[in-house]
Amino acid sequence: MTIGRTTWAVPEGYIPGRSTADARDLVSHDALCFLNAGERDAQVRLTVFFTDRDPVGPYRVVVPARRSKHVRINELRDPAPIPTDTEYSTLVESDVPIVVQYTRLDSRQAANALLSTIAFAADA
Amino acid sequence: MTIGRTTWAVPEGYIPGRSTADARDLVSHDALCFLNAGERDAQVRLTVFFTDRDPVGPYRVVVPARRSKHVRINELRDPAPIPTDTEYSTLVESDVPIVVQYTRLDSRQAANALLSTIAFAADA
Amino acid sequence: MTIGRTTWAVPEGYIPGRSTADARDLVSHDALCFLNAGERDAQVRLTVFFTDRDPVGPYRVVVPARRSKHVRINELRDPAPIPTDTEYSTLVESDVPIVVQYTRLDSRQAANALLSTIAFAADA
Amino acid sequence: MTIGRTTWAVPEGYIPGRSTADARDLVSHDALCFLNAGERDAQVRLTVFFTDRDPVGPYRVVVPARRSKHVRINELRDPAPIPTDTEYSTLVESDVPIVVQYTRLDSRQAANALLSTIAFAADA
Repeated sequence: MTIGRTTWAVPEGYIPGRSTADARDLVSHDALCFLNAGERDAQVRLTVFFTDRDPVGPYRVVVPARRSKHVRINELRDPAPIPTDTEYSTLVESDVPIVVQYTRLDSRQAANALLSTIAFAADA
Repeated sequence: MTIGRTTWAVPEGYIPGRSTADARDLVSHDALCFLNAGERDAQVRLTVFFTDRDPVGPYRVVVPARRSKHVRINELRDPAPIPTDTEYSTLVESDVPIVVQYTRLDSRQAANALLSTIAFAADA
Repeated sequence: MTIGRTTWAVPEGYIPGRSTADARDLVSHDALCFLNAGERDAQVRLTVFFTDRDPVGPYRVVVPARRSKHVRINELRDPAPIPTDTEYSTLVESDVPIVVQYTRLDSRQAANALLSTIAFAADA
Repeated sequence: MTIGRTTWAVPEGYIPGRSTADARDLVSHDALCFLNAGERDAQVRLTVFFTDRDPVGPYRVVVPARRSKHVRINELRDPAPIPTDTEYSTLVESDVPIVVQYTRLDSRQAANALLSTIAFAADA
């Protein structure tokens, strides 16, 4: 079964720099969520674009065959952490079709806020 | 009238394991919302993908002709309940065209948060 | 300029039956937002689908040429009001291309929650 | 690399006229987020549509090559500020392909709310 596309874009990115909660599930975060419904592992490359400097990447993620994977942008370290309180965009490229969704949990205030959208499927 | 597609994907899934409210409408939940605008009942199969184990399914849902149906992932039982506080993805396959939207209500904190997106239409 | 499509679907619909605020801008509501960027008025027909009874409609809305229009589902009256605390779906049909987005403001609790998504463009 | 489209639409727009927070990151705002993953600067034109008067624009934005840019609608001034507490829609036209996402932060109440969606890609 081949589900999805190989190139995805998410123009919005912003990791809130504060949280009112310490528990990992309620710490402010940006997440890219991947579905690989196929039979081959997906080699995924993320490129992060900024407002005033060159893009950084690739960040490499493997999404195994027939698996879900949710990656917190906050936790990416190689080639460099993404700064908090900074506007960015993300380009996702995979060697096999996957599906990508972007979600933020913002707990800067007493009650958390959420946003989510399927990413833009950018294959030609 | 034929509206929609037969294959849909939602990479993001996470059922919050706590709620500050007891009333069913404010209990934390993930929902798949279906529109079958056509004249034939839709036999829908859900497959749930996880991070570290094989997919589970199919979960079977019937969306009658010319009906709306909102299904809480929390309440699925057959073949197995979906664990809370666990990252997952969902694949939706229907024998007739439908439209699918994914929504979460998160009431882990004093005021609820919402997210929603039309699912990814994955038909070839 | 012709922007958009003529058939749109929104599987998720739910008008929260309570609000913590009285001001119109913070009363819980579901809204369909329309952009008609073209030179001809759009005659729009909404059909509302329910879980356990036949669809209701058409609700008729005119979106004038080169205008935005945000319609609160709560405020539709003809042919019948949409009940609160009830799951529904909406089909949108227009005689000229438009763009449709769905947004909910939920103020059942002390701080409001929001969700929004571009509707599904269902043209064949 | 050519990623995206040249015409995008966002039917929903509403700048909340109040905020419980003074810090810029928590002031209520509507934002258009752009990704230009290509090698040429994007000359972007925004046209804002209203309910009861003619569209206003173009608002001109440059999104440099290989850059992210998040623009707060609240902060646009030329040719005219967008009024708060007013329903509007936005049309985005670019001379090179870009990707567009729309996000609102609403801090009218004690805890902020968020919504976001990829804009509608309206290229013929």
